[in-house]
Amino acid sequence: MRMVDLIQKKRDGLELTDEEIHFIIEGYTNEKIPDYQMSAWMMAVCFQGLNKRETATLTKEMMHSGDIIDLSAIAGVKVDKHSTGGVGDKTSLVLGPIVAACGVPVAKMSGRGLGHTGGTLDKLESIPGLHIMISEEDFVKQVNDCHLAIIGQSAHLDPADKKMYALRDVTATVSCIPLIASSIMSKKLAAGSDAILLDVKYGDGAFMKTIEDAKILARTMIEIGESLGKDTRATISNMSQPLGNAIGNSLEVKEAIDTLNGHGPSDLLELCLQAGSHMLVQAQKTDSEIAARKMLEDVIASKKALHTLCAMVKAQGGDDEYIKHPEMFEKAKEVIAIKSFKEGYVKDLEAMTLGLVSMKLGGGRQTTDDVIDHSVGIVLNKKIGDFVKKDDILLYVHTNHGLSEELRQEILSAYHFSDDFVAHPILIDEVLS
Amino acid sequence: MRMVDLIQKKRDGLELTDEEIHFIIEGYTNEKIPDYQMSAWMMAVCFQGLNKRETATLTKEMMHSGDIIDLSAIAGVKVDKHSTGGVGDKTSLVLGPIVAACGVPVAKMSGRGLGHTGGTLDKLESIPGLHIMISEEDFVKQVNDCHLAIIGQSAHLDPADKKMYALRDVTATVSCIPLIASSIMSKKLAAGSDAILLDVKYGDGAFMKTIEDAKILARTMIEIGESLGKDTRATISNMSQPLGNAIGNSLEVKEAIDTLNGHGPSDLLELCLQAGSHMLVQAQKTDSEIAARKMLEDVIASKKALHTLCAMVKAQGGDDEYIKHPEMFEKAKEVIAIKSFKEGYVKDLEAMTLGLVSMKLGGGRQTTDDVIDHSVGIVLNKKIGDFVKKDDILLYVHTNHGLSEELRQEILSAYHFSDDFVAHPILIDEVLS
Repeated sequence: MRMVDLIQKKRDGLELTDEEIHFIIEGYTNEKIPDYQMSAWMMAVCFQGLNKRETATLTKEMMHSGDIIDLSAIAGVKVDKHSTGGVGDKTSLVLGPIVAACGVPVAKMSGRGLGHTGGTLDKLESIPGLHIMISEEDFVKQVNDCHLAIIGQSAHLDPADKKMYALRDVTATVSCIPLIASSIMSKKLAAGSDAILLDVKYGDGAFMKTIEDAKILARTMIEIGESLGKDTRATISNMSQPLGNAIGNSLEVKEAIDTLNGHGPSDLLELCLQAGSHMLVQAQKTDSEIAARKMLEDVIASKKALHTLCAMVKAQGGDDEYIKHPEMFEKAKEVIAIKSFKEGYVKDLEAMTLGLVSMKLGGGRQTTDDVIDHSVGIVLNKKIGDFVKKDDILLYVHTNHGLSEELRQEILSAYHFSDDFVAHPILIDEVLS
Repeated sequence: MRMVDLIQKKRDGLELTDEEIHFIIEGYTNEKIPDYQMSAWMMAVCFQGLNKRETATLTKEMMHSGDIIDLSAIAGVKVDKHSTGGVGDKTSLVLGPIVAACGVPVAKMSGRGLGHTGGTLDKLESIPGLHIMISEEDFVKQVNDCHLAIIGQSAHLDPADKKMYALRDVTATVSCIPLIASSIMSKKLAAGSDAILLDVKYGDGAFMKTIEDAKILARTMIEIGESLGKDTRATISNMSQPLGNAIGNSLEVKEAIDTLNGHGPSDLLELCLQAGSHMLVQAQKTDSEIAARKMLEDVIASKKALHTLCAMVKAQGGDDEYIKHPEMFEKAKEVIAIKSFKEGYVKDLEAMTLGLVSMKLGGGRQTTDDVIDHSVGIVLNKKIGDFVKKDDILLYVHTNHGLSEELRQEILSAYHFSDDFVAHPILIDEVLS
């Protein structure tokens, strides 16, 4: 078998056999197939697509390219959650505790942020002492003890995806649905969960720009899950503006803690309750989403979810006093209020622009080597549907290095106003299963 | 400017500016752009194409990536000829001498063969002593002295094409018309000619499988030539079977000599007379193709063309006695006649299969490092339209290592018969300008 022939086959729109896909992934992982052939093949995939079987096989081959985490020593149905990422997306920090507090084991491997999107691991690391690299054995033990662990990916998990993702990033083959779907699902499946809840976001701050693309991506991932015998569901949610109010690492952790204390932003809470109720049903805790939602509301009201987060933080070496007293988090030197020059209803709020501003303040990475400043970021005061008068505060910038005129202009440009009434947007459009 | 953005742009079907194409070719030639980005870009070009301006700019940038041969010291209009290559294609060895003998300077840079197609340089090197690496100065002097030189490409000619061609070969981006057209034209233009005659072949033994694709390729190259101010014409010719009867290096040189002596195969002669008459018109020797054809027939009849070939061979260090007495060429140890098991009209004769048989006999290269055996090959006795009786000789195999049963079967499989009458095929379908 020769890689050049398989590139040609896909280029000509033909189906690849399971053996051929195995040859590609095994060969690329083990450096028998060079980058220049893989990138040409992936570009051909962008144009010709992969069918259901090809996508499932690709995912399975990627999943088996490295270690498979064995969670069988954890009792119960393990449900993993994956969000396609966005600006201000701290759902894992809320969803993990509330679901775990209902008795469902949450054994989660997360990633770091790049560009305009933040990463759960970076956010967690703003808690002093907390570490995210834990052995598989300790990971299993921790989930058995306190039902919740959120850790970094093992270095040998899905090496095919690591190589392919890095290559896609520099060859304009990122936005290709079968490649996105197999990348996400192969990691989730290698991480050993029994069921998967996906949160597929669309809009300005998300990878999928339209609801149609988000649905195709969700359907593709559900089909992969089904092919490999895993219960998979997806919420389709709107990322036309940042989720919640906080953008930036410790600012987002504090907002997650607020939410677990019962006074978080309503959009974040609603997304977590909806997603969480599906996860409880998938974990067979109940067969009704309504009953599940009640269970989740109860663990917030009783602070059981907050205690679960404290237990996790402690187990991972972190100081749980920060969770109990979030005012302890190190603050940025300066908080600058940005006021509106205009009046009207906020009709559009560019999540991507604000995500990039937060990155430029030091809260995110431009390249993978950048070091993160955990204290900086943005807290929104006005969001889509809010009425703004001239001189009203739009948002607060938390910064350690002032605020350049350029960044101030970027921030203002993210807000778009309308004289006509604008409704608050609906967050979850649909649930697919 | 970032290469990833230019890949994305082409992937999305957008036009690239001249500056962007310059960035790509300059960057790739000078190793600032890695292979994996170039292969992804070329795959995107295969799907999205390049428009007329983009193709012309790409060609110009490739042409300027290395040395440009200065032929201004040669008097007269320099006409170069390029064949897209095929099995048994020895036209340069006939066309060069007959056109040069009419007083048109022919300063030709040729290539080597790979796979099923032979290369003019390999054929020429079957003449003892002849060398093909000559300085630019001597090249110009030789053309001024005897009107004809056929030499190897300078190492610094069109380095962009050398890198791109090698990469296309292993990434299934060979059969992409704008990339083929820019590859051919950039080399021809860098080689300094004033006018170009292209012979674009189609059919089983050629790169273009259909006449439609051959015409699109020809039109694309003519447009490039026009954009860069060079008179460019193209013959569209049928390569459904090998050209002439001989396949293999010295066998093809001998057939070319036969043709210059007035007793070559009619298809080869006809192609050379038609192509040559266009070249004389392009070189402004006459404005009538009919008059031009007469001039070419005259230089064959008077042996002037044969003497021109002798002069070239001598000037390049070769022994011209071999041209005068072709029986001197080293012969293969064995000549095996292959007889037909069937009866009927030959309706199809697979040029590609016979080209590969000749390669396997040692007459061609499987990889660029292979050493060529000049004496081996095939001489056809029956071609399309011929009637064959059982036990008639189809062809002769010239071999130094016997003939395996496998190769014998391959040879027989190249012939397809029909009980119904089959006409001799028309060689040149059209001339485009």
